[in-house]
Amino acid sequence: MGLKSPKEYVDSLRDERTVFYRGERVRDVTEHPVTRRAIDHVAADYRIAEEPAQRDLMTYADEGGQRHSRYFKVPRNAEDLLRRREMIEASTRAGHGVVLLIKEIGTDFLFAMRAVATAMHAKGKTDYLPRLERYHAQCQDRDVAMAVAQTDVKGDRSLGPTEQAHPDYYLRVVSRNKDGIVVRGAKAHTTGSLLANEIAVLPTRALGEADRDYAVAFAVPANTRGLKMILSPFSESSPSEFHHPISGAHKIQDTLTIFEDVLVPWDRVFMDGEWQYAGAIANTFVQFHRFTAASYKLPWIDLMVGAAMLMADVNGIARANHVREKLSRLINYREAVLAMTKMSAIQHRMLDGGIAVPDPVLSNAAKFHFAENYHTMVRHVQDIAGGLLVTGPAEEDLANPETGPAIEKYLGGKQGVPTRDRLRLMNLIRDMLASEAGGYHEILSIHAEGSLETQKLTIVREFDAKPLLDFTRRCARLGA
Amino acid sequence: MGLKSPKEYVDSLRDERTVFYRGERVRDVTEHPVTRRAIDHVAADYRIAEEPAQRDLMTYADEGGQRHSRYFKVPRNAEDLLRRREMIEASTRAGHGVVLLIKEIGTDFLFAMRAVATAMHAKGKTDYLPRLERYHAQCQDRDVAMAVAQTDVKGDRSLGPTEQAHPDYYLRVVSRNKDGIVVRGAKAHTTGSLLANEIAVLPTRALGEADRDYAVAFAVPANTRGLKMILSPFSESSPSEFHHPISGAHKIQDTLTIFEDVLVPWDRVFMDGEWQYAGAIANTFVQFHRFTAASYKLPWIDLMVGAAMLMADVNGIARANHVREKLSRLINYREAVLAMTKMSAIQHRMLDGGIAVPDPVLSNAAKFHFAENYHTMVRHVQDIAGGLLVTGPAEEDLANPETGPAIEKYLGGKQGVPTRDRLRLMNLIRDMLASEAGGYHEILSIHAEGSLETQKLTIVREFDAKPLLDFTRRCARLGA
Amino acid sequence: MGLKSPKEYVDSLRDERTVFYRGERVRDVTEHPVTRRAIDHVAADYRIAEEPAQRDLMTYADEGGQRHSRYFKVPRNAEDLLRRREMIEASTRAGHGVVLLIKEIGTDFLFAMRAVATAMHAKGKTDYLPRLERYHAQCQDRDVAMAVAQTDVKGDRSLGPTEQAHPDYYLRVVSRNKDGIVVRGAKAHTTGSLLANEIAVLPTRALGEADRDYAVAFAVPANTRGLKMILSPFSESSPSEFHHPISGAHKIQDTLTIFEDVLVPWDRVFMDGEWQYAGAIANTFVQFHRFTAASYKLPWIDLMVGAAMLMADVNGIARANHVREKLSRLINYREAVLAMTKMSAIQHRMLDGGIAVPDPVLSNAAKFHFAENYHTMVRHVQDIAGGLLVTGPAEEDLANPETGPAIEKYLGGKQGVPTRDRLRLMNLIRDMLASEAGGYHEILSIHAEGSLETQKLTIVREFDAKPLLDFTRRCARLGA
Amino acid sequence: MGLKSPKEYVDSLRDERTVFYRGERVRDVTEHPVTRRAIDHVAADYRIAEEPAQRDLMTYADEGGQRHSRYFKVPRNAEDLLRRREMIEASTRAGHGVVLLIKEIGTDFLFAMRAVATAMHAKGKTDYLPRLERYHAQCQDRDVAMAVAQTDVKGDRSLGPTEQAHPDYYLRVVSRNKDGIVVRGAKAHTTGSLLANEIAVLPTRALGEADRDYAVAFAVPANTRGLKMILSPFSESSPSEFHHPISGAHKIQDTLTIFEDVLVPWDRVFMDGEWQYAGAIANTFVQFHRFTAASYKLPWIDLMVGAAMLMADVNGIARANHVREKLSRLINYREAVLAMTKMSAIQHRMLDGGIAVPDPVLSNAAKFHFAENYHTMVRHVQDIAGGLLVTGPAEEDLANPETGPAIEKYLGGKQGVPTRDRLRLMNLIRDMLASEAGGYHEILSIHAEGSLETQKLTIVREFDAKPLLDFTRRCARLGA
Repeated sequence: MGLKSPKEYVDSLRDERTVFYRGERVRDVTEHPVTRRAIDHVAADYRIAEEPAQRDLMTYADEGGQRHSRYFKVPRNAEDLLRRREMIEASTRAGHGVVLLIKEIGTDFLFAMRAVATAMHAKGKTDYLPRLERYHAQCQDRDVAMAVAQTDVKGDRSLGPTEQAHPDYYLRVVSRNKDGIVVRGAKAHTTGSLLANEIAVLPTRALGEADRDYAVAFAVPANTRGLKMILSPFSESSPSEFHHPISGAHKIQDTLTIFEDVLVPWDRVFMDGEWQYAGAIANTFVQFHRFTAASYKLPWIDLMVGAAMLMADVNGIARANHVREKLSRLINYREAVLAMTKMSAIQHRMLDGGIAVPDPVLSNAAKFHFAENYHTMVRHVQDIAGGLLVTGPAEEDLANPETGPAIEKYLGGKQGVPTRDRLRLMNLIRDMLASEAGGYHEILSIHAEGSLETQKLTIVREFDAKPLLDFTRRCARLGA
Repeated sequence: MGLKSPKEYVDSLRDERTVFYRGERVRDVTEHPVTRRAIDHVAADYRIAEEPAQRDLMTYADEGGQRHSRYFKVPRNAEDLLRRREMIEASTRAGHGVVLLIKEIGTDFLFAMRAVATAMHAKGKTDYLPRLERYHAQCQDRDVAMAVAQTDVKGDRSLGPTEQAHPDYYLRVVSRNKDGIVVRGAKAHTTGSLLANEIAVLPTRALGEADRDYAVAFAVPANTRGLKMILSPFSESSPSEFHHPISGAHKIQDTLTIFEDVLVPWDRVFMDGEWQYAGAIANTFVQFHRFTAASYKLPWIDLMVGAAMLMADVNGIARANHVREKLSRLINYREAVLAMTKMSAIQHRMLDGGIAVPDPVLSNAAKFHFAENYHTMVRHVQDIAGGLLVTGPAEEDLANPETGPAIEKYLGGKQGVPTRDRLRLMNLIRDMLASEAGGYHEILSIHAEGSLETQKLTIVREFDAKPLLDFTRRCARLGA
Repeated sequence: MGLKSPKEYVDSLRDERTVFYRGERVRDVTEHPVTRRAIDHVAADYRIAEEPAQRDLMTYADEGGQRHSRYFKVPRNAEDLLRRREMIEASTRAGHGVVLLIKEIGTDFLFAMRAVATAMHAKGKTDYLPRLERYHAQCQDRDVAMAVAQTDVKGDRSLGPTEQAHPDYYLRVVSRNKDGIVVRGAKAHTTGSLLANEIAVLPTRALGEADRDYAVAFAVPANTRGLKMILSPFSESSPSEFHHPISGAHKIQDTLTIFEDVLVPWDRVFMDGEWQYAGAIANTFVQFHRFTAASYKLPWIDLMVGAAMLMADVNGIARANHVREKLSRLINYREAVLAMTKMSAIQHRMLDGGIAVPDPVLSNAAKFHFAENYHTMVRHVQDIAGGLLVTGPAEEDLANPETGPAIEKYLGGKQGVPTRDRLRLMNLIRDMLASEAGGYHEILSIHAEGSLETQKLTIVREFDAKPLLDFTRRCARLGA
Repeated sequence: MGLKSPKEYVDSLRDERTVFYRGERVRDVTEHPVTRRAIDHVAADYRIAEEPAQRDLMTYADEGGQRHSRYFKVPRNAEDLLRRREMIEASTRAGHGVVLLIKEIGTDFLFAMRAVATAMHAKGKTDYLPRLERYHAQCQDRDVAMAVAQTDVKGDRSLGPTEQAHPDYYLRVVSRNKDGIVVRGAKAHTTGSLLANEIAVLPTRALGEADRDYAVAFAVPANTRGLKMILSPFSESSPSEFHHPISGAHKIQDTLTIFEDVLVPWDRVFMDGEWQYAGAIANTFVQFHRFTAASYKLPWIDLMVGAAMLMADVNGIARANHVREKLSRLINYREAVLAMTKMSAIQHRMLDGGIAVPDPVLSNAAKFHFAENYHTMVRHVQDIAGGLLVTGPAEEDLANPETGPAIEKYLGGKQGVPTRDRLRLMNLIRDMLASEAGGYHEILSIHAEGSLETQKLTIVREFDAKPLLDFTRRCARLGA
């Protein structure tokens, strides 16, 4: 096999996984309206892979001519990374600006884990690499949806795993037996877990020798016994197309994911105790994942820029100097994020096992630039749109004959544009940037894929300073 | 009379006013759950005026010893303005950071209208001043709640009132008769209109001679025939105390306010055709109102700073350098807004009729500083709180025995702080800064009380540059 | 006595002090052109104290009716601090925007030392307070110019005084005898030392018990044996009035100040070994001094704003939207710094001994706001001025008949403004903001009176968070 | 011929050109110390073209195998533009971070003029293209140094050429005869004119039909009769290697360039009256030139980053959190400018005549990002360096036995680094960022190659919005 249909994907989720939502067990995620909406959103991944126009981008043929989702293709060069970026952008466009993330992050894990397993292999830890390769091949063959659970709940963040009030604030191996390892702990904000077939787990940080039992990486099916997912209720929108043109149909789902003494069979264990490699896997994963992040942000930014431009026109202020100023900032923002993302692919580095990873300075700089400036860009779009964003009437008021005609009359903008279209634009902007979903996206901008601080640290650490320091020493005549 | 009780206030709203919400006529605003919540929020104004500890601040005694709401007191000096600021701050604190705005804005109108009426009086337009004084006295005696409708719907914003596709994009006088004037038009985002007894109306901009019919200011009772209010459905929260500790009980209500050929009796008309004064009243009103704005922002900022500090502590990151950096920015922000607001009172200017108006450069600078930096401050608080803000569980999950204990266990932070308190803090921050209400407050920050651009214009226009220019000329030896 | 004349002040500097400049000993600072220029600049302090219009501001009468420089008056209330601010502003205006700093900083030291000596007095260290009071009285009576040497050279800044490569990187007591203490070390960037009669010394940071010998505060005459000052040659301008309208006559002088086993008599020693108070004196001094800083920045900012406005007019761009935008930023900047400075006086705190100190949160916030935004404000002014700032012709080219007329013709701006005046404005801006002096002022903005980081720390540490935390806890229903 | 030697270049400047400096005629620019220093700086262009290691980058072989300076090679694809960027970077590195600009800008003109001449050719104006091609070939064969004079002096900037107080505020054709055209006017801040063999002239803006005589483009030898250059005296440094490690040897020279009825022969006239093309040539030129700008900024940024890193280490603060924060900002800044510059080459557009021009949105965004953030980056470096930047001693003080040893002792930093090297680093930073030269570079950052406002306008105008608008319309369901 190689490619699932959307229907096969949906069917694959009827597996009795343990999901809670607002205090209730969700018996079948394909039936509950909230989870079903999320499933329909991400099923676009399988849908567009079947579209003739997108097929070449979304899939590739292996040496035997078998087609697979392109996500599973190990990147070997700039071209592979650039195509991956394009694919992520395209699938996010299919999600109307909202990332699908059912293969992006899982394959980020597979690539990183493969590189680290290769490094461990060279040091005599020879179990992991063949396991990971088999697992990777199976995932590709079954065209699975994958989630990744990385962020531990952490307790007091000023303390390490073994210093906490209880030992489970970071996920750990509590016992080992002939069948596998038993793990306990909880991972916070796992995106897409309830939409995935497989859930991969890896450490969230570098570890010391005393933290050996926390140095664990593995993958389990989503319906594994002892695995509980509590779906967050926040940023849920009504499905109104008028009021919530984006979030009514497209949104990201995160769970608190609890491992209550879950048994992981040995052939799914990719790290167990190799604390020296915890930092490497945590870090390599995020290098891939920040590139994914920078890639999937683009359609969202494009919607911001596009909505600002259309709104300026409809409001009759497109020629105002301060509006042009704001538009220029929005365009610059877009171009900087995109250019650094592309250049991180072009100037990639090679990891163990011949895997191409985007240049970490550039991918982090792209992600940081996005995050650091996001709120200001939100403000520019809100500013252009006007206060009506949050004081306008409801769809039902438009339908009401006592109020509808007055609304049509009074809330028009530039002549020739229907009032409803003006309100639709307002609603688009409010839904994206001034709503539950808007709040979610602000948090996403700064907390997903690592914090602002982590990105700064990475940038300084990974920067190749030597040529600059040599040049500076020469110009300053140090030692003269 | 002089002071209403909260109950009297609530009763006063049962007057058959015409309010629509989500396509339905609201028959009694004191009964509908959404409007009732808003009424309970603003009734705090009447409640705290009765509290012994706040009485001296919230009320004052006139020469005859009669106590009135202090809002109605015409400011004559710095002390009056400083007390007014303090009163606005106190009542907003009673609203848990959310302004009440049922007397603040109305009295801003009364003061501005009085000054402009005084100026018109001196030019021979002698009807308006006595009318306004009588109206002011009645409002005070009846302790009324007031809303102000200023912002016209505007149509194409690049065009003036008479250049629009239809003549009603700005509110105007369509006819005059022996009883009064008849007005038609619509005002956007009128805050608190459904909670008010009186609605005051004034022009939104300077006007030319051709715009004579648009130069109109007046006040009408909220249940006046022909007056329709369409309440915006956006940023409505569930009343859950856990999920929405602020917005579940405290929120601002705005309407699209439509005047369908409303008759305004002559004794309620304060401007009718004096287009030369349209700019003056529009501008003087906002000078008072930006001071009100800068004053009522403080408790909200205080909640942001306080929540950031508590959250940093609970998360165990209070000593992290980058957290201290963010806290220092938040504190600076607070201090700058507060200092400029106070100084605008201390360095007030005197208007016609001996009315003290806050220094417009400083009050605009305070408001601009607030607005320009708000989104960045939001980001700092969100950053300190962490991603759990929008990925955490529901209240019902805490109550569910299958998930509650695991949540209690895993979502703890610093030892000694109950998990529920950590989640309450998260919820506070999400409710304020990453939710429907959060979106509303972002828009409020930049669009309420005039746009960023208007504030910049005012600052440059009102700045007393002469001493600086003289000093500069001397230092540059111009003309030497 | 009570007040010196300018001439008496100049004469007082002929005392054989040890000053080096560009490798040469300066025999008489009143004769060397560079130091004489600086003397003439600061002598304005004595000059304006004699001017009838400024006399009441610059001086005060003690209980006996004797007039003294107001700088020496211990601040007891808001009024004293506000007058002090005004006095600093006025004397800096006399220096064409460049602070004089021959009494401002010295009296900052006197006030801080008095408060700390009072605290030590209460703990049984009873020598210091009477000494300090006598010294203060003598300084006032002799109307001395004072410099303060605080910043140690510090060596490796990651190490404390006793951890350094050699023990003299922080100034310390090397021995004690019946006459006094003997001190060794060097202080960096001592402003105005070569212009002062007295040089006060205090620790630069909090110290531990092992650092006892570094906990030392005292004052010595500038011509004390063993005291060497090396005057920095940087930012020296030609005295051309045309090219350097400000820096040609007004500039700050800093020395590296070396104490080669200097004997300090006991009656001039104000701290010797009380390491517990090192942090207190270092910190209290800067609280006063940051208020001084915030006060003396204003005339410089005023010149920036004034020059930008005049330049915009002369270039014919005063009505361009982007210029108005920049002017509004400049005005806001001025207003924020000024409002926080004034409020820090109004909301002062009281120290031991009944001394009023400006509110440290506000004075630090004022200083921080100044420093954080200075470079951006510089950019706005440079932007308005245009590239001609640094590509224009020399004064001599104007005088040359082969080039002068063409320059007059071609470098005109708006009609009616003489070309020379346009060039004078350009020169003013270049001299202030794009020259050696400009570089100096950029460094001054961020390094004088403590670094940006220190100000942030102070703001967080000194902020009275309790009311905000209580309010937040209540709104979040913590513990509910 | 094809390549000049450095000596041949220097000799070529002894041509009796008319240069004034500080009121004196400079008889031979190769003899005067100020101009000679500038000549030695730019001669690096000819020097490195001879270095084996740089030869392949700096030169190319034409079809006949003749080697030429690569600057003259018309870019046909991304590779050509990327190599050009690399070449500009390399030659600027040879100038220790200071651009040479004796071929960069001239060839920007040649490419732009060729594209516009091709467009005019297609419209029947067939003289210009062959002339330009011949001129281009001659310049290449003679390996000339070229300057470009574009910016008119402009007078009142709110007025167009024909509205000014006198008609010469923009350069214009005053008469035509059989030999050529006669031009009059003055161009401001012409970089490198005194170092060039050829001076090209083009309009500074789009023009209307009434401005026909101002629509003129041509080139003349630098010693043409009637051409006067007045060299600006600002930002001249002493040649001290210690105090001015960069500007003592490397600096940019600008002149006010006056055309006193200069005759331009017909074969050097490339536009004469075609006002419809004035905007095209002005704009196309700057598209090339902003790419040049973005390219030559990199070595300067690298010096800033490198100096900040070395200084942090020497001061012992490399591990301080706030320093890492600042370093991360500096690195991000570098990466954003570089990535957008490279992407502008990769995503180039094709002009008439098959000439590849860097994508204008990206090249403008790169330049704007550089300019908008430059002052803040300067602040970060100054901040890390410390106040000693401008308060340190002179080289002569180090040599003086009375002061030298104390300086060596006290001004050391981290152990193991010689004090002199610490001071050299300080001097490097001061020279670059807090000096006459530093002021020059600040102005350069915002005014060279077009203002910030122009870049914003270009970005909005050139942005291909259609795909974004379509995507937005679809997501917002406009017209639904």
